[in-house]
Amino acid sequence: MKAEIITIGDEILLGQVVDTNSAWLGQLLDSLHIAVHQISSISDSREAISHALNEAANRSDLIFVTGGLGPTKDDVTKETIASFFQSKLIRDERVLEHVKSIFEKYGNGRVMPDMNYGQADVLACCEVLFNDVGTAPGMWVEYQGRCFVFLPGVPFEMKFLMEKRVIPRLSGYRAEMVIYHAHVITMGIGESYLAELIADIEAELPNHIRLAYLPKLGTVRLRLSAVGKDESVLKKETDGFARRIAIRTGEYLVAEKDVTIEEAIVERFTEDHIRLAIAESCTGGLLAGSITAVPGASGMFDCGIVAYHNRIKHEVLSVEEAVLIEFGAVSEQTVIQMAEGVKLLGGATYAIATSGIAGPTGGTVDKPVGTVWIAVSGPYETVSQLFHFRNDRQVNIERSMAQALNMLWKLYKKDSSK
Amino acid sequence: MKAEIITIGDEILLGQVVDTNSAWLGQLLDSLHIAVHQISSISDSREAISHALNEAANRSDLIFVTGGLGPTKDDVTKETIASFFQSKLIRDERVLEHVKSIFEKYGNGRVMPDMNYGQADVLACCEVLFNDVGTAPGMWVEYQGRCFVFLPGVPFEMKFLMEKRVIPRLSGYRAEMVIYHAHVITMGIGESYLAELIADIEAELPNHIRLAYLPKLGTVRLRLSAVGKDESVLKKETDGFARRIAIRTGEYLVAEKDVTIEEAIVERFTEDHIRLAIAESCTGGLLAGSITAVPGASGMFDCGIVAYHNRIKHEVLSVEEAVLIEFGAVSEQTVIQMAEGVKLLGGATYAIATSGIAGPTGGTVDKPVGTVWIAVSGPYETVSQLFHFRNDRQVNIERSMAQALNMLWKLYKKDSSK
Repeated sequence: MKAEIITIGDEILLGQVVDTNSAWLGQLLDSLHIAVHQISSISDSREAISHALNEAANRSDLIFVTGGLGPTKDDVTKETIASFFQSKLIRDERVLEHVKSIFEKYGNGRVMPDMNYGQADVLACCEVLFNDVGTAPGMWVEYQGRCFVFLPGVPFEMKFLMEKRVIPRLSGYRAEMVIYHAHVITMGIGESYLAELIADIEAELPNHIRLAYLPKLGTVRLRLSAVGKDESVLKKETDGFARRIAIRTGEYLVAEKDVTIEEAIVERFTEDHIRLAIAESCTGGLLAGSITAVPGASGMFDCGIVAYHNRIKHEVLSVEEAVLIEFGAVSEQTVIQMAEGVKLLGGATYAIATSGIAGPTGGTVDKPVGTVWIAVSGPYETVSQLFHFRNDRQVNIERSMAQALNMLWKLYKKDSSK
Repeated sequence: MKAEIITIGDEILLGQVVDTNSAWLGQLLDSLHIAVHQISSISDSREAISHALNEAANRSDLIFVTGGLGPTKDDVTKETIASFFQSKLIRDERVLEHVKSIFEKYGNGRVMPDMNYGQADVLACCEVLFNDVGTAPGMWVEYQGRCFVFLPGVPFEMKFLMEKRVIPRLSGYRAEMVIYHAHVITMGIGESYLAELIADIEAELPNHIRLAYLPKLGTVRLRLSAVGKDESVLKKETDGFARRIAIRTGEYLVAEKDVTIEEAIVERFTEDHIRLAIAESCTGGLLAGSITAVPGASGMFDCGIVAYHNRIKHEVLSVEEAVLIEFGAVSEQTVIQMAEGVKLLGGATYAIATSGIAGPTGGTVDKPVGTVWIAVSGPYETVSQLFHFRNDRQVNIERSMAQALNMLWKLYKKDSSK
């Protein structure tokens, strides 16, 4: 049972849109024990679409196609796939009524453009996947022993159709072999040191369990993937290895399940009834945003201050004017006062503060672009550290966020072990 | 001249990592007039790698391969590609010295793990792309009239190698035909209404100019892509059509170049010496983060407050306690006071405030998940609007951000035309 994903759209090849749909589909299919073997992004031209459908049909049993169904470009896609299946397009009256009703609701009295009638055209050979949340219907086609699923590229419409229309139909396509994953998340240790640390456990892994190292900004996610017939046996065996690895990683361990560091922090702080506050300069709100993006963050987070201007650092966070004048905004003294200020303001037990020069401008000889001070204040002490990152605004911000969360996690673990 | 991109790594197929490298490469190659025809993500297995290299070699002239070069998994990749090129692996002493020096610098006195020696192994048939910023070198291979470029998957290492090592070598591979893009960015009008509005201009487009509609969260980006031999002729012709479309879109026009709404806001506010402040509840810092992620944001932004808890709304933003008690945090009255409060606090001319229930928990019968109030306060008035989004935290947050920026842009354009 092989599945693959085809994404149609020049905007992906041109890099104007990042393909997040495939990642979402990959996760979902993996959770259903359906293995994705390839993801292809192609142009929205007849030639590319029919070439990709041919290749996929030679290679896979279950083919998901997203994109190419919007009102201004669905002609090419639908005609090409109709000819691939030696079928034709027919107008679906139920879909047409639905498209019309959407325009009546949101069109502010404007008449529905003619091109939207075409959205109700579907393959004669398909089963229509009715799209309650948008105008482009999905289509399910079984053809020469393969199954093709066509979905709109708008992420929430694609997700809606997968969840409501496709998953219930997929039961017959699940693999006989079960795939099971276990995860160990570490922070603060490099990939190769970690590999050395657990080399003897890795050497013991049987052939049907693979270990992958997934490093990202200070975190290394270890994924154990097992393939077999009996899920409960597989789970027990794989979890056993994961447990041994987790114990070995010791102080570097974040979690024994597939969570981000933000999710681990929200979960542990909520459980421990500890609250976090955040004061940001160079990270500009994204650090607070990374915490509040986690469901349930309100259980441990009340207050974030984006103090881009020194006046806000002084007036809101109570950083002393003398400190700002003598040492500057990007200094140990300032970032410590920011952390302690926001901790008090937010009534929190822990606080993080960042202040740095993200770039591309604003650097000086003494403090070049990439100079970042980070402080974390906890119940017993405030720690601070200076970083020199590279010269790209986005990377500097991402690394600052990762290091800030790393420092918070380390201090929290140290305090918890007291 | 056809290019394509192959991304190696199970983590992408499993959806555990979103492939942002390909989007970055696609943009870069497009700017160099090199057309990317396909992006493929494959498993890090021998079979998948050699199959993908074969297919790509049959189809394209220039093949970029990213990933699969980390210390814990480069064996499979490098051995497979060596056998594909009928070559072998040799140890590069200069690379080895460099890998060692990195471990001396960052290893905290620990000995370099043995596996890192393997990172200095390169194809005998390649030109080494020396990686100053990491341990995995890139490789450039010319083989049977095709050019293959192997790069590490870590984004900033990949970017470094492309910019410093690969681009200078690509001059011989640029297309004879020139590709030129022009963009018109609109906001607040749906894709099909927009298509109707400009249908007569679109009908006039010659065959060598294609128009694409790229809708995303209230914005529609129109991209005119032209192919021809003379760039200056092409530019004049395409820009002429773009200008006519831009004029036609009138009140919905954001910009006549490829910018995000955030970039347009930062540019226009900075030019007009206008400052923005942001108060956030449900968007949790991400709205401020989307503005401060734009280089130069400090030219128009001083202050953002993430007021998750009512106490912060009252104490920092001066929302009246009586209002919070009578109408609740998610209410028109509260969000207006948040906007006006942060405008005053930040000394800004414009302010945005968001307050809503992002989910998955926190909804009530009166205010279900997805209920969001947004206010924008300007120099003449404060406007507010109630939204009912869908039941997914991430989508609710993204739509709140898009609507907030849309409301800000509308009010700013209205005020500017006075």
